[in-house]
Amino acid sequence: MSLNSFGHLFRVTTWGESHGPALGATVDGCPPGIEVDAAQLQHWLDRRKPGQSKYTTQRREPDAVEILSGVFEGKTTGTPVQMMIRNTDQRSKDYGDIAEKFRPGHADITYWQKYGIRDYRGGGRSSARETAARVAAGGLARAALEALAPGIEIRGYMTQVGPHGIDRSRFDEGQIEENPFWCPDAGAAEQWAGYLDGLRKSGNSVGAICEIVARGVPAGLGAPIYGKLDTDLAAAMMSINAVKGVEIGEGMAAACLTGEENADEIFPGNDGQPVYSSNHAGGILGGISTGQEIVVRFAVKPTSSILKTRQTITKAGAAAEIITKGRHDPCVGIRAVPVGEAMMALVLLDHLLLHRGQIGDAGGRIG
Amino acid sequence: MSLNSFGHLFRVTTWGESHGPALGATVDGCPPGIEVDAAQLQHWLDRRKPGQSKYTTQRREPDAVEILSGVFEGKTTGTPVQMMIRNTDQRSKDYGDIAEKFRPGHADITYWQKYGIRDYRGGGRSSARETAARVAAGGLARAALEALAPGIEIRGYMTQVGPHGIDRSRFDEGQIEENPFWCPDAGAAEQWAGYLDGLRKSGNSVGAICEIVARGVPAGLGAPIYGKLDTDLAAAMMSINAVKGVEIGEGMAAACLTGEENADEIFPGNDGQPVYSSNHAGGILGGISTGQEIVVRFAVKPTSSILKTRQTITKAGAAAEIITKGRHDPCVGIRAVPVGEAMMALVLLDHLLLHRGQIGDAGGRIG
Amino acid sequence: MSLNSFGHLFRVTTWGESHGPALGATVDGCPPGIEVDAAQLQHWLDRRKPGQSKYTTQRREPDAVEILSGVFEGKTTGTPVQMMIRNTDQRSKDYGDIAEKFRPGHADITYWQKYGIRDYRGGGRSSARETAARVAAGGLARAALEALAPGIEIRGYMTQVGPHGIDRSRFDEGQIEENPFWCPDAGAAEQWAGYLDGLRKSGNSVGAICEIVARGVPAGLGAPIYGKLDTDLAAAMMSINAVKGVEIGEGMAAACLTGEENADEIFPGNDGQPVYSSNHAGGILGGISTGQEIVVRFAVKPTSSILKTRQTITKAGAAAEIITKGRHDPCVGIRAVPVGEAMMALVLLDHLLLHRGQIGDAGGRIG
Amino acid sequence: MSLNSFGHLFRVTTWGESHGPALGATVDGCPPGIEVDAAQLQHWLDRRKPGQSKYTTQRREPDAVEILSGVFEGKTTGTPVQMMIRNTDQRSKDYGDIAEKFRPGHADITYWQKYGIRDYRGGGRSSARETAARVAAGGLARAALEALAPGIEIRGYMTQVGPHGIDRSRFDEGQIEENPFWCPDAGAAEQWAGYLDGLRKSGNSVGAICEIVARGVPAGLGAPIYGKLDTDLAAAMMSINAVKGVEIGEGMAAACLTGEENADEIFPGNDGQPVYSSNHAGGILGGISTGQEIVVRFAVKPTSSILKTRQTITKAGAAAEIITKGRHDPCVGIRAVPVGEAMMALVLLDHLLLHRGQIGDAGGRIG
Repeated sequence: MSLNSFGHLFRVTTWGESHGPALGATVDGCPPGIEVDAAQLQHWLDRRKPGQSKYTTQRREPDAVEILSGVFEGKTTGTPVQMMIRNTDQRSKDYGDIAEKFRPGHADITYWQKYGIRDYRGGGRSSARETAARVAAGGLARAALEALAPGIEIRGYMTQVGPHGIDRSRFDEGQIEENPFWCPDAGAAEQWAGYLDGLRKSGNSVGAICEIVARGVPAGLGAPIYGKLDTDLAAAMMSINAVKGVEIGEGMAAACLTGEENADEIFPGNDGQPVYSSNHAGGILGGISTGQEIVVRFAVKPTSSILKTRQTITKAGAAAEIITKGRHDPCVGIRAVPVGEAMMALVLLDHLLLHRGQIGDAGGRIG
Repeated sequence: MSLNSFGHLFRVTTWGESHGPALGATVDGCPPGIEVDAAQLQHWLDRRKPGQSKYTTQRREPDAVEILSGVFEGKTTGTPVQMMIRNTDQRSKDYGDIAEKFRPGHADITYWQKYGIRDYRGGGRSSARETAARVAAGGLARAALEALAPGIEIRGYMTQVGPHGIDRSRFDEGQIEENPFWCPDAGAAEQWAGYLDGLRKSGNSVGAICEIVARGVPAGLGAPIYGKLDTDLAAAMMSINAVKGVEIGEGMAAACLTGEENADEIFPGNDGQPVYSSNHAGGILGGISTGQEIVVRFAVKPTSSILKTRQTITKAGAAAEIITKGRHDPCVGIRAVPVGEAMMALVLLDHLLLHRGQIGDAGGRIG
Repeated sequence: MSLNSFGHLFRVTTWGESHGPALGATVDGCPPGIEVDAAQLQHWLDRRKPGQSKYTTQRREPDAVEILSGVFEGKTTGTPVQMMIRNTDQRSKDYGDIAEKFRPGHADITYWQKYGIRDYRGGGRSSARETAARVAAGGLARAALEALAPGIEIRGYMTQVGPHGIDRSRFDEGQIEENPFWCPDAGAAEQWAGYLDGLRKSGNSVGAICEIVARGVPAGLGAPIYGKLDTDLAAAMMSINAVKGVEIGEGMAAACLTGEENADEIFPGNDGQPVYSSNHAGGILGGISTGQEIVVRFAVKPTSSILKTRQTITKAGAAAEIITKGRHDPCVGIRAVPVGEAMMALVLLDHLLLHRGQIGDAGGRIG
Repeated sequence: MSLNSFGHLFRVTTWGESHGPALGATVDGCPPGIEVDAAQLQHWLDRRKPGQSKYTTQRREPDAVEILSGVFEGKTTGTPVQMMIRNTDQRSKDYGDIAEKFRPGHADITYWQKYGIRDYRGGGRSSARETAARVAAGGLARAALEALAPGIEIRGYMTQVGPHGIDRSRFDEGQIEENPFWCPDAGAAEQWAGYLDGLRKSGNSVGAICEIVARGVPAGLGAPIYGKLDTDLAAAMMSINAVKGVEIGEGMAAACLTGEENADEIFPGNDGQPVYSSNHAGGILGGISTGQEIVVRFAVKPTSSILKTRQTITKAGAAAEIITKGRHDPCVGIRAVPVGEAMMALVLLDHLLLHRGQIGDAGGRIG
């Protein structure tokens, strides 16, 4: 995991800027013989695509992915897979006024301070457009998971928008695809719609919490001490634009529990395999999967681009005011859901391959 | 960052089990000419050492560190530094009854499922004793930071124990060393003392939240996209035993903020350098340090070893009961503070070297 | 250095197959502010391009490189640089008859045995076309070296073709660009021309030796023990298609020398800096550059594609005969020269950045 | 592969200096359940140990290895294995006079130029003593190979000492253990004995060539393009102290062959598996093993420590003379044989695990 690459054996390197000619993902270490084509990847990209409802940016990008290498006659060959997405709706004139001023909450100032040069036509490398490349790579990872560990299901949704959380007692997975918020609680979805309408009209934005769950993950994935499954998931989710917190299972709330409450007790299941009384651990003990659901949550800060005047400075160090016009998301968290799912797929596949490499079938059986 | 190694250029590999002959850290990539000796590292190890108050495990380990390589005449040579700590107080008889049963909340079951073999004399590789090696490596990193970036200060403390949080209006850094909880709020410290006494007597345990702050970090550390400073900090903290959540700046609470509230506005400072109206971002924008305080928080779950009977299973898959006797911490979060500080030092030094390597002095100036 | 990536800090990942839509190099870790454009990279690609004389394959590829990311207004931004080369002259019909048979000396059989799938339209991933991506990356590395360590010059040439070696007493660097063989000895070049004409007409091929020299490399680059400069150079050169041996300085001939003969004695130079009586070491001691010329040599085996009937087997395991028609190089070593130069540039830049990262200006002075 | 670490999945980090308290190898990624103990590793260390004949250094080190972690009840646990060797015969007074002068052919000057500090008590980190750690790690790799790929045999020997090569027609594997030179040709062994006696008496030294062969390696190990089996073998061998050249199969001599001569033709074997008419390729095509013998050769330069006065300079830059007294090898190549075998074992195991991780059993069958 170094700079623009992610993963140990299934290694993804993303490249490209928001207003350059293209962006993409170079994937090295993909298992061979996996059936995949551009249409299949497109399915996942379309879920992340902007402009699908009034709650996400109106930037219109087809986000059409091309596979340039590593796939032959519909199957991966085991060599690097290059997935490229052309940028088409660049309208860089929208961004002309930010060449000299730093937008608060954006990476404008830090990129300048780090590199001494900055692609000021939008977010450049720090734009959330980069996540399209992750979603393409995640689509490839999903195809490989389906072939190698068929039972795994990955499901993401939003649990909170601003102050409004879902009611877990009304959780209905069937609702997730029925509203523009990936919201599993129909009541909350309605509430969010009104709340976000108001924010959008006032030119403001708000944060959110996304939860990503993986079911059917075999026990034994992950490794001590810096290659723990939760360590890699934390890195994966924190690497998504605007994410400020990551939780596994109980997350920050684990601080409030006693040891007695927190213990997920273990019982023999019908098939002799362990079952647990609860899942405070979020499916991970000592960095290794237990076979329970893997539960990860992350908080996305509010979009920094808002139609409100903010104080800032120029490259020359002078005080200035800025309003970020352009086409932006009132709640960027919505589009983070498919990205979080993609990162989960990448981490799980990577650890599946690592496990197969180091351990093979030497793992321990119970019973 | 792979398996038992952490860091890109300043690369730490820890090794050893809780009840083996020794454990340690192999550090590769240390800058040469750094003044360091065992006594200096011991200072940091002593802060983490168990048995210092009734609130931490009574296991008594001198945790004496030996430097076996990479230091000559009191200075690092630039070659690998091996730091070894002998295990002396092993008393493995305490753990004899857990050879066949899996302790709930511990990694016993997952290590078995992964590896098909498990050092059942305590936590083995998954024991929090491993963190002694990190603290030694962190001591070396601090020495290097002091030489290369003299202004950096790293300070950790606890902000919550079970349901009891500190009162930020009473925050007094001077208090941190004055109580056994690294608590910056004298009132909270008193409250925690009583609360933890009760838990300890009842054989229970509780979770906690630690906060680690770094001041004087130059702007520009970190890198897109998977080598972000916050990505690496999230991985670093999540890799600590029992950590279930990691936050940067506002953390999970960022979900509740509007874009208007969350914007850290920028102003020209007296010396021409940017000053910010607030630090919701926790000192990091786009994965790169702003020059403000770096603020990281993490939640530690309650110690899983408690004097309460819990349901579990045996390796053979049979139902069983277990009580984990032995010497344990009612709140393992207390000892996580020096570990979190060490991880902060490791990440900062690593990124300082990475930055120097890729960028040199090409970074951008303001004004 | 893992699978399709090369380098520690300046990290190149190449992707693409000989008969897919495109191939390229993803470069992560490039220093910012380096002036570079496609034309500059094209200069190096044109030197490697096939079809430039009757001694190299008549495959006609413009090998036009596009920069898709990481460069803004003519300068690198410090983010990943994607360089793509479209494949245009694919004529895959030439290769139709090798779908079922394995060409001796080619990677057809091993790719099949490894992956269970093979892009049979030519060499696929194992084709020497991959080296175009290296040359593009090497061009970028040269631009960065020019900015960061202006005195470095890299120069490659051939020293042997089949049984015909150059006469070192006639070595004339000015000759290298004057013949189609990068030959520094005009007499040898003439001899090679006749020899290769004969081989070409008879449908045969031959091996060669290339030598790559770097001048002006500062002392101190490289690192123990597995990151030695010569270790990385050996890996770099051995990774080039068809290379079977790599030498540093005296190389294999070091076996014949006594310690007395082999010692490069050291003397104080006019400027106080060390000068050496000789350079048996090839500019590297203990894996670290001495400041002398870095001298690397590698042997390229004869092109395996020849117009001679060879015995082979089919995927079904049946005996078969094969003649590899198509457009091939009688001496693939010729085109390996610019590739070897590129690899030298990549290794030197990578070690320059590594050195700056770990050491800064802490290196030792003499005098 | 970075700095002091080697390997992708089976990752070895060596540490320690020749005159420090200890040296060792930290191995991460070892498969679990491998039977191994210190005695087994000692077997391999004893083969490398100095002082076993008058042809190797008279430094007397027991080189006793201790396993400090990662092994429980005689089996690896899958966690890091720490192997430590104490330095006992340090006699650093022998080296006192080289604190200020640089020994020609040694890394004294380059370590100083790189790091600005140097452990002048002998070679420090650049001493061949480091290879003891590799041999220990190699012993562990051999144990794992025996468990995972039982048919593999690794055999090293010397083929040349100074100008005297073996006669391949007299090659007798049974001879290798019968003389102090690992020489498979009894006649050559006798010749070398006389030749080296003379050199030793005159205080001179000489180079050598070692050949390492691995049999029974399954087809399919290795990976494009920078993770080729031969790339990693070249790096592995070049990383050994004093090695100046590495060859696979025909090696440098491949330059002299025509394509017709060099083609290893393929035939159906009795069991339906491919057999080859020859092995010019040294068992590797396109970086991937063919199932034939893997053949690697490397040249070791003459020991630089000789009893001959050589010209050098001091740290202050003044001209000086130096004679390297102490206990040294007239032909350090002899002790490089077990080291080369160890490196072969490390590379093969690493690629076996990598292959299992990425490919599992998806490889292609013939017939």
